[in-house]
Amino acid sequence: MTEQPARNAEQRKQDTLRRLERDVDLWVASADADGGAPYLVPLSFVWDGETLLVATPAASPTGRNLATTGTARLGIGPTRDVVMVDGTVTPVELADLPEEEAELFPARTGFDPRGLKTRYRYFRIRPQRVQAWREANELDGRDLMRDGKWLVAD
Amino acid sequence: MTEQPARNAEQRKQDTLRRLERDVDLWVASADADGGAPYLVPLSFVWDGETLLVATPAASPTGRNLATTGTARLGIGPTRDVVMVDGTVTPVELADLPEEEAELFPARTGFDPRGLKTRYRYFRIRPQRVQAWREANELDGRDLMRDGKWLVAD
Repeated sequence: MTEQPARNAEQRKQDTLRRLERDVDLWVASADADGGAPYLVPLSFVWDGETLLVATPAASPTGRNLATTGTARLGIGPTRDVVMVDGTVTPVELADLPEEEAELFPARTGFDPRGLKTRYRYFRIRPQRVQAWREANELDGRDLMRDGKWLVAD
Repeated sequence: MTEQPARNAEQRKQDTLRRLERDVDLWVASADADGGAPYLVPLSFVWDGETLLVATPAASPTGRNLATTGTARLGIGPTRDVVMVDGTVTPVELADLPEEEAELFPARTGFDPRGLKTRYRYFRIRPQRVQAWREANELDGRDLMRDGKWLVAD
């Protein structure tokens, strides 16, 4: 593989914010509360500048895991240009999401969880840790946010 | 989104095998044994026709989780053309991997875990369940393997 020079923290944060604003899909890893059973699915998301919003059936493995454990790890981007997010998760019932957000979700993702036969829930994910790297030479310096605080200013 | 017609099981299995043979990277979701803490990283892999081989530091979250729980869920492909694998995991010490496989790994992935300062381990992942789907219209019929058996013949 030909490696590009490693990006500095400012560039990684800019690239990360651009990806959060423009990407449509991400990978959601969750775990069951009994321990040992990981789950993983691709979902669509919307970023509002502070949190990511996803929607999945309340009774699905991901829906149950997120509601029970309140934690998720997200992967955004292709495998050699990733943004990783560890976040705390709050379930939001369909009827409780502000109308503006409920309209924005299908406009951005092409998917509207309202009015389906299967019962969906939104989940709001607040990043606590954010990492970004492309290749092995970017593993150093990959932490961009810790404890919910960006490590570099805008 | 413009959806393609849903593929049948035979086509999905062919596409899945092609992806296992040709793709270089995948997403590995694991969970800690205490429950509730999911982990997720992109790693490179080699498919030998029956198992996937990955390598990661023994002391990393993924390395510890896989060794402790013996289970992983993998995502291969972009988010709208995925292969999902639930597998059982066996750790393999660097010195215990057959030489031929140890040579094939860097030839395929560009990464050789042998001789590094950080202690790596291989992990051999045997699929128990395999799923494949592109868009929502392919969610029905997404299971291609259950209990380690392909549901359609070659």
